[in-house]
Amino acid sequence: MINIGIIGSGYWGPNLIRNFIAQDQTNVLAVADLAPERLTFVAKHFPSVKDLYVDANQIINSKSIDAVVIATPVSTHYDLANRALDNGKHLLVEKPFVASTSEGRALIEKAKKKKLVIGVDHTFLYTGAVEKMKQLVDSGDVGTPYYFDSVRVNLGLFQHDVNVIWDLAPHDLSIMQYLLPESPATVSATGISHFGNGLENIAYLTVNYSDSLIGHIHVNWLAPVKVRRTLLSGSKRMIIYDDMEPSEKIKVYDRGVDFVKDREDIYDMLVQYRTGDMYAPKLDPTEALSKMVDEFVGAIEGNKAMRSDGVDGLKVVCLLEAAQKSLAGGGVAVEVETV
Amino acid sequence: MINIGIIGSGYWGPNLIRNFIAQDQTNVLAVADLAPERLTFVAKHFPSVKDLYVDANQIINSKSIDAVVIATPVSTHYDLANRALDNGKHLLVEKPFVASTSEGRALIEKAKKKKLVIGVDHTFLYTGAVEKMKQLVDSGDVGTPYYFDSVRVNLGLFQHDVNVIWDLAPHDLSIMQYLLPESPATVSATGISHFGNGLENIAYLTVNYSDSLIGHIHVNWLAPVKVRRTLLSGSKRMIIYDDMEPSEKIKVYDRGVDFVKDREDIYDMLVQYRTGDMYAPKLDPTEALSKMVDEFVGAIEGNKAMRSDGVDGLKVVCLLEAAQKSLAGGGVAVEVETV
Amino acid sequence: MINIGIIGSGYWGPNLIRNFIAQDQTNVLAVADLAPERLTFVAKHFPSVKDLYVDANQIINSKSIDAVVIATPVSTHYDLANRALDNGKHLLVEKPFVASTSEGRALIEKAKKKKLVIGVDHTFLYTGAVEKMKQLVDSGDVGTPYYFDSVRVNLGLFQHDVNVIWDLAPHDLSIMQYLLPESPATVSATGISHFGNGLENIAYLTVNYSDSLIGHIHVNWLAPVKVRRTLLSGSKRMIIYDDMEPSEKIKVYDRGVDFVKDREDIYDMLVQYRTGDMYAPKLDPTEALSKMVDEFVGAIEGNKAMRSDGVDGLKVVCLLEAAQKSLAGGGVAVEVETV
Amino acid sequence: MINIGIIGSGYWGPNLIRNFIAQDQTNVLAVADLAPERLTFVAKHFPSVKDLYVDANQIINSKSIDAVVIATPVSTHYDLANRALDNGKHLLVEKPFVASTSEGRALIEKAKKKKLVIGVDHTFLYTGAVEKMKQLVDSGDVGTPYYFDSVRVNLGLFQHDVNVIWDLAPHDLSIMQYLLPESPATVSATGISHFGNGLENIAYLTVNYSDSLIGHIHVNWLAPVKVRRTLLSGSKRMIIYDDMEPSEKIKVYDRGVDFVKDREDIYDMLVQYRTGDMYAPKLDPTEALSKMVDEFVGAIEGNKAMRSDGVDGLKVVCLLEAAQKSLAGGGVAVEVETV
Repeated sequence: MINIGIIGSGYWGPNLIRNFIAQDQTNVLAVADLAPERLTFVAKHFPSVKDLYVDANQIINSKSIDAVVIATPVSTHYDLANRALDNGKHLLVEKPFVASTSEGRALIEKAKKKKLVIGVDHTFLYTGAVEKMKQLVDSGDVGTPYYFDSVRVNLGLFQHDVNVIWDLAPHDLSIMQYLLPESPATVSATGISHFGNGLENIAYLTVNYSDSLIGHIHVNWLAPVKVRRTLLSGSKRMIIYDDMEPSEKIKVYDRGVDFVKDREDIYDMLVQYRTGDMYAPKLDPTEALSKMVDEFVGAIEGNKAMRSDGVDGLKVVCLLEAAQKSLAGGGVAVEVETV
Repeated sequence: MINIGIIGSGYWGPNLIRNFIAQDQTNVLAVADLAPERLTFVAKHFPSVKDLYVDANQIINSKSIDAVVIATPVSTHYDLANRALDNGKHLLVEKPFVASTSEGRALIEKAKKKKLVIGVDHTFLYTGAVEKMKQLVDSGDVGTPYYFDSVRVNLGLFQHDVNVIWDLAPHDLSIMQYLLPESPATVSATGISHFGNGLENIAYLTVNYSDSLIGHIHVNWLAPVKVRRTLLSGSKRMIIYDDMEPSEKIKVYDRGVDFVKDREDIYDMLVQYRTGDMYAPKLDPTEALSKMVDEFVGAIEGNKAMRSDGVDGLKVVCLLEAAQKSLAGGGVAVEVETV
Repeated sequence: MINIGIIGSGYWGPNLIRNFIAQDQTNVLAVADLAPERLTFVAKHFPSVKDLYVDANQIINSKSIDAVVIATPVSTHYDLANRALDNGKHLLVEKPFVASTSEGRALIEKAKKKKLVIGVDHTFLYTGAVEKMKQLVDSGDVGTPYYFDSVRVNLGLFQHDVNVIWDLAPHDLSIMQYLLPESPATVSATGISHFGNGLENIAYLTVNYSDSLIGHIHVNWLAPVKVRRTLLSGSKRMIIYDDMEPSEKIKVYDRGVDFVKDREDIYDMLVQYRTGDMYAPKLDPTEALSKMVDEFVGAIEGNKAMRSDGVDGLKVVCLLEAAQKSLAGGGVAVEVETV
Repeated sequence: MINIGIIGSGYWGPNLIRNFIAQDQTNVLAVADLAPERLTFVAKHFPSVKDLYVDANQIINSKSIDAVVIATPVSTHYDLANRALDNGKHLLVEKPFVASTSEGRALIEKAKKKKLVIGVDHTFLYTGAVEKMKQLVDSGDVGTPYYFDSVRVNLGLFQHDVNVIWDLAPHDLSIMQYLLPESPATVSATGISHFGNGLENIAYLTVNYSDSLIGHIHVNWLAPVKVRRTLLSGSKRMIIYDDMEPSEKIKVYDRGVDFVKDREDIYDMLVQYRTGDMYAPKLDPTEALSKMVDEFVGAIEGNKAMRSDGVDGLKVVCLLEAAQKSLAGGGVAVEVETV
């Protein structure tokens, strides 16, 4: 059994606790949170968790804990993670991995030396929807990728320690990076902060790959409805991934681009709604987090790297940092660090 | 009766012909098109049109024609329009108005001198949906506007003389300009051309207004489904305008932003789909083009300026030009000419 | 050329006129309507129609007319049709064919003797959607049909000469009859008349076929939104036909019924939204009415019977009559006349 | 504290366990299920439940248990409930309440004598959606109710001890009964059993109230997608309740019926999608089951009857019994027992 300690039990924490309890090879020994009422919540819902701490150090320094899960604000990730590595713990870190690329590089180096696992909780990579997209891209069904366009929009709510890019874009950036075969060259970002706190609540990121591949991400805290909609378009097929759809999250459209020569044909097409057949494949309904927990366990046991390890987490941070710089420069293209 | 000559009878031309025929105070005397098969089409569907010409000059030089409608590729607008003004014709020009701001300024000046009307066919301004949005903004129901975000995406089809910005963005830019009370300061644009012809088929425009207002437009010829979806968000209410919805094109959401203080409240909100009541007002179902034709007639009769006159058309061209420059500069913010 | 006279130019009449004008082998010589303002409408929109009459007899008795199209209230169909046949005209009759099975039998007999064509305007049979469903049933893709369930619901509007069954159900009954391989045995109908005129504005029809096939139709004039949604389910596949969907009218679901043995599997399925892959085939976008007009012309030229000839029209009337009797009997099952 | 024993831990049981654990005034002492693997499931997920039994009698006979929750197949309800009442336990029974009206009457009588509470788990009555509909009906906003039409359709899955009417229709019948101010007079039911076991898997129920009110319910186990869609229409407003909609479950349409006099107006309306404004009120997001558990506790404490007590449960059984008889009689109208 792998003994787990979880630091941070806010919005997402209980999902981590629940899945580590359900995993056959892990034991949740302890949970830490600065807020006593969150510990009361954990005690009530997860009576099997033995130790509840206000002080995260009791987890980091515990002899009996093998792996530490960090689900706290990003500004605290590096320090907690670094000390946990020092104490020989494997790590699973909530997204975004860290607050800067230098922090990320340092942690990866240290983990490598100490042969410890770092996983980053890019949950979406483990959904049936993203797995299906990955398979469609890798099999060549999509053809040459042309663009990745993602909208992630939340309900008029914010009170955060980071801007909307660092809060929401890691989801889209991790999916994009996982699916696309190329490495990003530059990022151009624009955005706005409406509430005088200097934290953007709306942002638009253009990620430039090569001459024939582009990514774009729209993240927004100030919307009337939740939208999570991604278009992935290639030379052969186009995919719409709508995470708000209950039953048809992935739609695959058969035809790509048409070079229509005849004017009349163009007029016909302009009044149509789509071209080609569409199909909506059945997706694996397994909870994404449970698959991630399984991969984390597998990585610790030395079987196989996670699909979202520290390096993947760092790549996302490289994109976030470039976006942040571009935002400061009024949208100018900023080079993305390579990992 | 106002005698109308229509130059260009491609995809949109027949709609113009039909509406000018239906208008009580106008007569469609002549239609010109370089393609004889389009003239055959017009002859069959609009037998009341007397004269069909291959040569547009026969319309421009006709003594009996009072107003010329130009529905040709944008590169030809200036020359046709300029000569029509010289011959004392009123003008209705398809969007985008002209290919450059200097062309637009010259035409507006000449029309002013000769007391001729210039209208630009920004059809969307005349839809029940945009009229309702205008009313909600002007009445203060929306509160202080925070952002305008529009997606206009077409079916994997292109074979055009201009890039996707000049083709599709005029719709969104004209709506945005009509609705928002401020003037745009700068534009940052990114995009890509997939097919080696140097014409972008995907583009993203950020339009920066003041510190608290931003616009963004996503135009794309390479999508599996048609999308026309606009979010207009203010301090009091948020509007979703989905032009593909058959019956509920406009949805108005009651609540704007929340500053939630309590962590538990935030967790609750994160799992909700929306906040506040929504209502979908009944919209005027009158065909937009027929209202535009009525306003064009009214302007000629000296009653009232059109909501889309030459100046409005020019403002859109100023935005297009700035976007084009930003695109060339890798997304750098470019100042928008004032009109 | 086949010379056409059209009697009745109400809601649907102009569509018939337009399509007969567009057909290469037909000529619309005359249109008749009791209401002069409808003739004015026809004159304005279809200037090529030579003769406009208030009196339908001028069409029925015209020497130059080869085929008569009847688009008047159903109570007038028999008399107009009977006299047109007497004068040697081919017939295309708006749905429902006639007001009683005896009227229908008499017309069919007479047409047979005089070798004249009777077509019934069951337009939906000519849509790309119904054609695709027909193909999926006939090819065996659907497997053994299990049920046909259709909802056709209109906007709180009525002022009719017949009840909602005779007004709306002919659409569904004709589609059902066209698709299903069996003949209906009995009909049970229930319904209600809200407005004291004795005409039901809501009705439910159960059409019993054999032991393993059932049909059900819900027609309603009193709904807040238009619904046209049909489920056709078989042992292998299930089809949803939603005519209000702009782009995906037909969805085909891969899996039929499951006999799940294990309780846990059942619990899993209860929380799922669907089973199996779905695909939405591209449909023929040709206007249905133009295909029907083509088949009518083909039938007159002796090539091939229409998919909606007099016999098909009569079969629908048999179902309507049985439904009417069941309604009077409080829902008791009433045998359907065989044709 | 009220000590609870729960008999049956199948699909729905865990939800009951979870909510009774979460309720402040209740304690889940014991759970019984014939299947040992379900008890293992309970042990894992609800470690706070002390006693797990294969034999339900250990709950019924326990001295320390105050209230028994019965979530077993309906055929066992009467016997378990009857003996629990004999032992002085309050009862919460899963829907449908019992297998016959005589069983229901006997239980209600006994509970009355012994001053014990009977609740029936008509969960939907406690949803924010049904609460909002109730409020709109009771306030007069809907006007005189005209019809209630409900479709409840499940995924090609069945292996049940009862037919689809007894399985699914209790939901719709309980909602209908809760919302409508009249008592039902007769029921006409049709249906079919596809799989040779004599249990209908599709059924249609017409519930006749007075001359101006009708109900209809379509229940079906054999569908490609889940549908839960109810129309409630009145003289002033119409409501659509779509339980599959994530964010807009209730839509209220402003206008009811129109008596349009003018033919042209009718033609206009025929091409529209709806009439009047629509609004989608924000609904109470509290879990329905937790509100039901609260009301059950309140009823035991003598505060207030539940909105779904034994009498309500019996009324639903009266409708089910009438439907069953009508089905056997080929759809003939069968009188509904009064309670």
